[in-house]
Amino acid sequence: MRVSLKDVAERAGVSIKTVSNVVNKYPHVTPAMRERVQRAIDELGYQPNVTARHLRKGRTGIIALAVPELGNPYFAELAGAVIDAAADHDLTVLLDHTRGEREREVLVSQGFRARVIDGLILSPLELEVEDLRGRDGDDVPLVLLGERQYDLPYDHIAIDNVAAARVAVRHLIGRGRSTIAYLGGRTDSANRPAHLRMKGWREELTEAGIPAPDSLVGRVGGWDRQDGAEAMARMLDSGVRPDAVFAYNDLVAIGAMRVLHECGLRVPWDVAVIGFDDIAEGRFGAVTLTTISPDKQSIARLAVESLLRSLEGTESPGGHEIAAEFRLVERESTLGRR
Amino acid sequence: MRVSLKDVAERAGVSIKTVSNVVNKYPHVTPAMRERVQRAIDELGYQPNVTARHLRKGRTGIIALAVPELGNPYFAELAGAVIDAAADHDLTVLLDHTRGEREREVLVSQGFRARVIDGLILSPLELEVEDLRGRDGDDVPLVLLGERQYDLPYDHIAIDNVAAARVAVRHLIGRGRSTIAYLGGRTDSANRPAHLRMKGWREELTEAGIPAPDSLVGRVGGWDRQDGAEAMARMLDSGVRPDAVFAYNDLVAIGAMRVLHECGLRVPWDVAVIGFDDIAEGRFGAVTLTTISPDKQSIARLAVESLLRSLEGTESPGGHEIAAEFRLVERESTLGRR
Repeated sequence: MRVSLKDVAERAGVSIKTVSNVVNKYPHVTPAMRERVQRAIDELGYQPNVTARHLRKGRTGIIALAVPELGNPYFAELAGAVIDAAADHDLTVLLDHTRGEREREVLVSQGFRARVIDGLILSPLELEVEDLRGRDGDDVPLVLLGERQYDLPYDHIAIDNVAAARVAVRHLIGRGRSTIAYLGGRTDSANRPAHLRMKGWREELTEAGIPAPDSLVGRVGGWDRQDGAEAMARMLDSGVRPDAVFAYNDLVAIGAMRVLHECGLRVPWDVAVIGFDDIAEGRFGAVTLTTISPDKQSIARLAVESLLRSLEGTESPGGHEIAAEFRLVERESTLGRR
Repeated sequence: MRVSLKDVAERAGVSIKTVSNVVNKYPHVTPAMRERVQRAIDELGYQPNVTARHLRKGRTGIIALAVPELGNPYFAELAGAVIDAAADHDLTVLLDHTRGEREREVLVSQGFRARVIDGLILSPLELEVEDLRGRDGDDVPLVLLGERQYDLPYDHIAIDNVAAARVAVRHLIGRGRSTIAYLGGRTDSANRPAHLRMKGWREELTEAGIPAPDSLVGRVGGWDRQDGAEAMARMLDSGVRPDAVFAYNDLVAIGAMRVLHECGLRVPWDVAVIGFDDIAEGRFGAVTLTTISPDKQSIARLAVESLLRSLEGTESPGGHEIAAEFRLVERESTLGRR
């Protein structure tokens, strides 16, 4: 039998209303009364019915998070951070992965489960601006994560990819490298993170007077370890031998390092490598990975708070660009063993 | 504007009921009529309202999955597999991580969100049998994943850990190793996977006439890379020098390999290493990782199907032990470079 408010009230010898006030943390309860009720709660093992509390406000207490791929540790770590940030507000997270397929992203963004969620945090890969324009009204608040820019009235949380890429490339230049490849080129449209990071790579090299020829851009078919391995192998096979690699993300970097290792090239002495995302895996290889670290906890917190502002109606509809912090984390793949 | 059943019916020139019959895949529709309606659906881009369909059956169409830690790639990959298996049945997955904390596992198992889910798949770490006995009725079907055994009327899906551990250790013996450490000892109660794997390690060594002293059991505080690194370092510091390591999971193995590398010990020549879980990370290090691979897709499918059987009422309450398959995957950490 579930312990009810009534049971707690009887044990504490107070009214149900008083127990409810304590549970809901209303301010007008004396400390003595609060302690008396809390003791009864502890003794009976009462758990407040969060669902009912949300329902009274006309909410479900559920928000949704849609990410491209849980198998990518960056998104798994980000999802964990969102779940924690949501729990701080008694919100439960409904999680879906879209596989980065436009069709599934459209389905999610069109609010196909609008009846059971209060809000949606969406990290799109392939979604186009027209897909979002077709959204079924604004009844379910939406926050966008990641680097694609849509110019639509939804809050958008991302780090400055061009600036972050320039920090990465500047670090490689500072380590004396001059043939710096970028692994992550795609034939996509221009407003995607892979292009923004390539833009930063090119800008920083140009400003330093270092060539940035297309032969140093490794095309990738996806963003996983295998894609990085294939791009690195193709570049080496074509006779291009960089002394440094800036990879689109840590997984691509890890795949590239595997191929460098197989070819007998030593990281960082022959080729320095820097990634992007700061996933835990990068801290433990035979060569630990230097990376750009976006502040995932901060991204998660900002996203949940943006949804809550929309739900409380405390501000006009979104459309704010919210910048998340990032930092360079220097490890063995550019510094060597210390 | 969302396209409605009515819009499709008008375009196809049929009744709403006929469109509904086609969408819900009822058998008594002629192929010609089905094609006519499908054409209208395709032209208008109509998406069936899955939520409404579930609600008509008195369901939400949502099942919950609770895993200890999304930051552990094994659970992230398993969650992806469950989401895919659920999608095959038009079910959405509500995902939560419990951090392996008993309090949060109790909260989840007690059905604190029973009002919004149809069923729960729970992968517990610290939950005790009395926590499950206190469950609030059987209104929300429950399936348990992983290796703890509770002897309660819930379906339980797991691989045979003792047998799998014996396969791992047998492989190391077959590679000529005789001082085989186990990294994963804990001071927990006996029905946990770490103990079952240690049991398999001990049984296989004993049967081969090889000593299995306690000095070769590395205690771990958790199941992450750092825990493996610390356990390996402690064992080497104490003067014990195994020629092979069987690790509780791949993350522990990867942490141990990092420490072996730092100590100048070569894997597999000086120390062979085998893990457990077959996470993608193990396929890409400087030394790829031999491992026991549980069939995650099969575990996910079995779990979703068990819930559906309970929901359909097609069988008496659970309590079935359902064995998932596993296999040995041989890579460089025991075979060397090929």
